[in-house]
Amino acid sequence: MTGVGHNSNATDDRLRLLMERIDRLEEEKKGISDDIRDVYAEAKGVGYDTKIMRAVRSRAKMGENGREEYDALVAAYEAALGVA
Amino acid sequence: MTGVGHNSNATDDRLRLLMERIDRLEEEKKGISDDIRDVYAEAKGVGYDTKIMRAVRSRAKMGENGREEYDALVAAYEAALGVA
Repeated sequence: MTGVGHNSNATDDRLRLLMERIDRLEEEKKGISDDIRDVYAEAKGVGYDTKIMRAVRSRAKMGENGREEYDALVAAYEAALGVA
Repeated sequence: MTGVGHNSNATDDRLRLLMERIDRLEEEKKGISDDIRDVYAEAKGVGYDTKIMRAVRSRAKMGENGREEYDALVAAYEAALGVA
């Protein structure tokens, strides 16, 4: 174990610097999350359905084969459950 | 509803631009998440316990009163469960 418990200023500084780097990165990440939320709000403001936008993003990640499989499975599960 | 279903190129472009902005922001966010993971890996590499680092970050957000309440509740629950 480095630092903690050894009362070494050098290693305590190392831990502090690592934590500060994480803090800064988490702040940046939060800023970007806020920006994303703002874009969705803007989209909603001009009439788009953000639930559908999120679905389209999610489906884009699946690829064409993944989307076909997904759609087929949803249809099969709905059929099994008697969903009209 | 704007765009979708209206076959308007102007509004289709608007949707495309909104989606592209979200894509770029999600990419940036992923890059930062990767950077955070790298810092934790670096911390682990020099001997710090990253689970404890995450706990310290979480507790920092609680504030002093929040930490005291949290510690008291954990102790009370453990006492109720007979945890030594």
